[in-house]
Amino acid sequence: MTKLKLGMVGGGQGAFIGGVHRIAARIDDRFDLVAGALSSNPERAAASAAELGIARSYSSYEEMASAEAAMDDGIDAVAIVTPNHMHAGPAIAFLNAGINVICDKPLAATADQAQAIADAAAKSKARFILTHNYTGYPLIRQARAMIARGDLGKIRVIQAEYAQDWLTEAADPANKQAEWRTDPAKAGGGAIGDIGTHAFNLLSFVSGLKTEALLAELHSMVDGRAVDDNAHILLKMQGGARGMLWASQVAVGKENGLSLRIYGDKGSIEWGQENPNVMQFARFGEPKQIITRGGAGLGGAAGQWTRIPPGHPEGYLEAFATIYADAADVIQGKADGSLLPTLSDGLDGMWFIRACQQSQAGGNVWIAK
Amino acid sequence: MTKLKLGMVGGGQGAFIGGVHRIAARIDDRFDLVAGALSSNPERAAASAAELGIARSYSSYEEMASAEAAMDDGIDAVAIVTPNHMHAGPAIAFLNAGINVICDKPLAATADQAQAIADAAAKSKARFILTHNYTGYPLIRQARAMIARGDLGKIRVIQAEYAQDWLTEAADPANKQAEWRTDPAKAGGGAIGDIGTHAFNLLSFVSGLKTEALLAELHSMVDGRAVDDNAHILLKMQGGARGMLWASQVAVGKENGLSLRIYGDKGSIEWGQENPNVMQFARFGEPKQIITRGGAGLGGAAGQWTRIPPGHPEGYLEAFATIYADAADVIQGKADGSLLPTLSDGLDGMWFIRACQQSQAGGNVWIAK
Amino acid sequence: MTKLKLGMVGGGQGAFIGGVHRIAARIDDRFDLVAGALSSNPERAAASAAELGIARSYSSYEEMASAEAAMDDGIDAVAIVTPNHMHAGPAIAFLNAGINVICDKPLAATADQAQAIADAAAKSKARFILTHNYTGYPLIRQARAMIARGDLGKIRVIQAEYAQDWLTEAADPANKQAEWRTDPAKAGGGAIGDIGTHAFNLLSFVSGLKTEALLAELHSMVDGRAVDDNAHILLKMQGGARGMLWASQVAVGKENGLSLRIYGDKGSIEWGQENPNVMQFARFGEPKQIITRGGAGLGGAAGQWTRIPPGHPEGYLEAFATIYADAADVIQGKADGSLLPTLSDGLDGMWFIRACQQSQAGGNVWIAK
Amino acid sequence: MTKLKLGMVGGGQGAFIGGVHRIAARIDDRFDLVAGALSSNPERAAASAAELGIARSYSSYEEMASAEAAMDDGIDAVAIVTPNHMHAGPAIAFLNAGINVICDKPLAATADQAQAIADAAAKSKARFILTHNYTGYPLIRQARAMIARGDLGKIRVIQAEYAQDWLTEAADPANKQAEWRTDPAKAGGGAIGDIGTHAFNLLSFVSGLKTEALLAELHSMVDGRAVDDNAHILLKMQGGARGMLWASQVAVGKENGLSLRIYGDKGSIEWGQENPNVMQFARFGEPKQIITRGGAGLGGAAGQWTRIPPGHPEGYLEAFATIYADAADVIQGKADGSLLPTLSDGLDGMWFIRACQQSQAGGNVWIAK
Repeated sequence: MTKLKLGMVGGGQGAFIGGVHRIAARIDDRFDLVAGALSSNPERAAASAAELGIARSYSSYEEMASAEAAMDDGIDAVAIVTPNHMHAGPAIAFLNAGINVICDKPLAATADQAQAIADAAAKSKARFILTHNYTGYPLIRQARAMIARGDLGKIRVIQAEYAQDWLTEAADPANKQAEWRTDPAKAGGGAIGDIGTHAFNLLSFVSGLKTEALLAELHSMVDGRAVDDNAHILLKMQGGARGMLWASQVAVGKENGLSLRIYGDKGSIEWGQENPNVMQFARFGEPKQIITRGGAGLGGAAGQWTRIPPGHPEGYLEAFATIYADAADVIQGKADGSLLPTLSDGLDGMWFIRACQQSQAGGNVWIAK
Repeated sequence: MTKLKLGMVGGGQGAFIGGVHRIAARIDDRFDLVAGALSSNPERAAASAAELGIARSYSSYEEMASAEAAMDDGIDAVAIVTPNHMHAGPAIAFLNAGINVICDKPLAATADQAQAIADAAAKSKARFILTHNYTGYPLIRQARAMIARGDLGKIRVIQAEYAQDWLTEAADPANKQAEWRTDPAKAGGGAIGDIGTHAFNLLSFVSGLKTEALLAELHSMVDGRAVDDNAHILLKMQGGARGMLWASQVAVGKENGLSLRIYGDKGSIEWGQENPNVMQFARFGEPKQIITRGGAGLGGAAGQWTRIPPGHPEGYLEAFATIYADAADVIQGKADGSLLPTLSDGLDGMWFIRACQQSQAGGNVWIAK
Repeated sequence: MTKLKLGMVGGGQGAFIGGVHRIAARIDDRFDLVAGALSSNPERAAASAAELGIARSYSSYEEMASAEAAMDDGIDAVAIVTPNHMHAGPAIAFLNAGINVICDKPLAATADQAQAIADAAAKSKARFILTHNYTGYPLIRQARAMIARGDLGKIRVIQAEYAQDWLTEAADPANKQAEWRTDPAKAGGGAIGDIGTHAFNLLSFVSGLKTEALLAELHSMVDGRAVDDNAHILLKMQGGARGMLWASQVAVGKENGLSLRIYGDKGSIEWGQENPNVMQFARFGEPKQIITRGGAGLGGAAGQWTRIPPGHPEGYLEAFATIYADAADVIQGKADGSLLPTLSDGLDGMWFIRACQQSQAGGNVWIAK
Repeated sequence: MTKLKLGMVGGGQGAFIGGVHRIAARIDDRFDLVAGALSSNPERAAASAAELGIARSYSSYEEMASAEAAMDDGIDAVAIVTPNHMHAGPAIAFLNAGINVICDKPLAATADQAQAIADAAAKSKARFILTHNYTGYPLIRQARAMIARGDLGKIRVIQAEYAQDWLTEAADPANKQAEWRTDPAKAGGGAIGDIGTHAFNLLSFVSGLKTEALLAELHSMVDGRAVDDNAHILLKMQGGARGMLWASQVAVGKENGLSLRIYGDKGSIEWGQENPNVMQFARFGEPKQIITRGGAGLGGAAGQWTRIPPGHPEGYLEAFATIYADAADVIQGKADGSLLPTLSDGLDGMWFIRACQQSQAGGNVWIAK
């Protein structure tokens, strides 16, 4: 099987999510990482590339985009793993160069940046893929399929939450991850952008329903913090469903508590990210079922996105890898990638952040989409 | 130990909560049930009393109140276990007769009824106790004590929910329990009254914080249902804490899913009613602890409200019995009953129902208390 | 409904299990406790009776048996809640007096005592009921019914355990409960007698299979302890099933960890006593089901032994009360009590203790029944 | 960082564990897979290599061993992923050629084969690493460290189990995985070899204690099956600890139920493989703690073997990858590999299989080591 050539922007020494993308790209052996502009600091970029054994290191993404586009064996895709406010620059550069983009979420730090990416994508032949990685979990995809075929009946209520505790106290200025995530100009939002967008994306992905309006109450629980760290959000969904979404980075005891519960008039599902190989499924009037990833009686629905037998837990990295494997399929024309998060999801996420802020500014009023 | 003489209004054949009150009153052997007006139907009242071996059966609560008050060995307390709209009549009659009242929740079906009870209580020497039975769970009381002494630090976020599924479909007209609970005139509210008031009471009881304002989005998911069956509520609490409360009777797969999670700046607790002998407690920066009822290392905090050793599960009936045992202590002057839910809690619950309805009517706006 | 008159032997001040029996007898309102010989110490007996409001207090069980038998309204049944080595005396006295006996487990401290009880029972018209209280849990009875009707197919493997940690360290001499339980003459065995017999009884009750042989490795982990505190036991059951049983009182972190897992060629069940309202049921090739007490889709099997709706947890005391309610039915001739543990179960338990000790003495060899 | 060159024997089309080894070798980017003898069938070997993009494909392991040893840039290590009875041949060939061996478990199908591998290893400068992959789980390593430093005190009781259900029914002859695993000549044992050896290895790895004797009761629950599919085993460990081990492939509802519980005189740990990011830790007299992988308050003990933050679940593949990463460190001289399973563990596993069979043959007697 021919492997694709991958480049990376961001992800140098001291970064977090870049390393995750690299493992994800390796797991299914569909990509070779051959080029990078790993840091905006040229020395760090070169040192990082050497450490990772990346053959072609560039000191800027602009240089990389034009050089790679000009090569016969230039990269097939670029992974953009910079902080939010630095997505738009490289995304547009590579889209303009005709190189497929795999971009971390949220789409951008501002609506203007997001729109600029959208404009570039509209003119480009290249694909734009957003790594809402939680959509790669096999049971999440199975839940989506179950709802689509009617197992839950008409959806009535959605309860989503994404709670962490790592910002319980004022962040250490030396914590690079916390620094940009709590700077409004760089992040574009606090908990709502960093994690709320994941929950918001996931509930639509699984339920198949778009949000029609939201009402948000944002709060910053830590003195001096410039962005929200706790958000309580009400949702009106298509078809009359109602939802609640809680996003928090000050919920003591929560590590990465993303969970999703969906109730229809015939059934329900409940799933949590921290033990992602298990899902509860209830049909009204019957005992609950414990659905396991690839497990008994499922007809293989989740099995297609899994590598090992049931009972052998897969995790976060495998779900992320599935996004990369799907991306490879799409780039190679082997699949249409209908499950892959796209620019449209990214724009929805930008709307979510902005609508939350508008609702808060207006005194917690409904903002229609 | 001298036992108290108990009477009961309501709770005849076909009723549900009356039987629960009777078991609760028996478990700790503090009461003898000696009198009753068990049904508004005189034949059913007599037959029910005979079946239960209750010596003095009355055909109306008015008759019972005056007769018992006139006896030397009349009842010390009456349990009122009628539907919501029939609380005020007997409550006022017994308060006027100087007989202590143990009343099921919510306080009443309307604000006027509630006020009338409050007026009667103000003039009476008798005590008024409301059976917010979930406050009788040992770990709930321990959580309250932990928060009061600062184990969680300053409270920031409260997540409460009470979800059931028994009204997922339109109720069978023959279901007596469903009939009055879905009739606005008899119940005063739907899910918000029947179960939402419990969650609302519990979060205040445990956190020690009063609600300052709420914003509610009420919905009736079943065609033709006249009361709410799903409610999404935002809370502003004393001291800046923020809360969410979900009450639902259409959440498929939920039996009696009352849960409470409270997050402070130093710690958190998480508890669910269906396995009430276990609570999770996290201190920021330390591994979570599993607190068990009366278990190791607790200093006996919960042990005073429990009958059997840790690992021997107590349940709903024992928690309810603790309310009765506390009531006995108060009536006998052995304790001040500071943990017992009172008229004030009942009035708070009435405010909760009304404020939810006002918020909904106003387009989901904040209602201050 | 006519209530039965109950007496009690043992259970005075400082005792544990007597109080449990009294609550259990009260919960379903089938008994009035009217007589007692609550302690072998006459002053304590009288004081305990006064404290409990028991009308007729005796200073010895012999006196009580003859006096009650001679009365027109003497007791219908006696609860024997003394330490193991003091079961035989009162049991025989009351059986000889024609009074029904409800006796705590294990049957006795020695085989001779057990045989003497059996002889007395054979000559008496009275019933002998042994309080293997865990058989009163609704889901345990439902599991038994499911296996009897073939839901699990042919039973292959049974995994039972009963682990506690309260004897992790050498017992405080002042701990009355620990004192007699670690004295071979009074207890007849250590962990195998105190808790192992419960697990042994339960696995037969649920599976419907008798044990044909066992092999036991007994150990005393605490220096100076005269009885076993940890036992590893292999079982050969009827029909070729194989079992393991672990009983321990030194398993740090275990409160009252009685659990039972049974695997057949078509299905399995898994249940634990500390959260007794839930059971897992698997059919081969299908997702596991979560069976709740009285919950959806069960056809009411467990519902007949439960008092409150699913989701409202019942516990240890209610399961114990079901034994008492069944006993009342049997004594009043309303039911045949086919689920009640009897003398035969008690003798099986005595065989279990002795066989474990013989297996150990012989170097961990099989002992056939 | 220089990458190592890896070869593979076995793991062609239709195989299972080969694919797992390849992912494991890729995750941390320490190996390039450059050579293979992927099948004993030359056509399948070539086709498999082509499909995987492996540059150098050999039609036999003998040819591969000599050719690679003769190359300047020959492989640094070979992964042997054949059925058990085909481990010895290639292991010896590569050891003789001076090439490091990473071999799947158990070591071999017979004692003679195992001894031959041991002899070859003794004469070779190459390392021999056995993939007892479950020792790569971060919390397993942390548990080992906790016990080593005395957190649990003196170990008293070990409860280990490894239960699956995939052989509940007679295996389909077309199931390649089942075919050789149920053939005594190819597998050397049934459940005891395939999964029992993992549990046996793991309990020693974590407790730090060797087994001194075992007593096993083996059973074949499925008609016509030639190997054991259910095993009940008693253990005597160093220092007086006692253990039970249950291995089963007919436990309906169990997917890959490997669990380990260890009790000392001061504390205990409980861990299960299916949700491997969580472990319970109890100190006597204190509430239980929930230890999470890399989570709060652990001092980083598990963090060194993990790639992503707590709450982001790692799974089976990452644990397997840790074995490969450790192997790379050892081969490159960067670490001593003290945690890596070795030949000695393999020989212990062979003893375990043989001792179980001898114990069974002798009527379930103790077999000393």
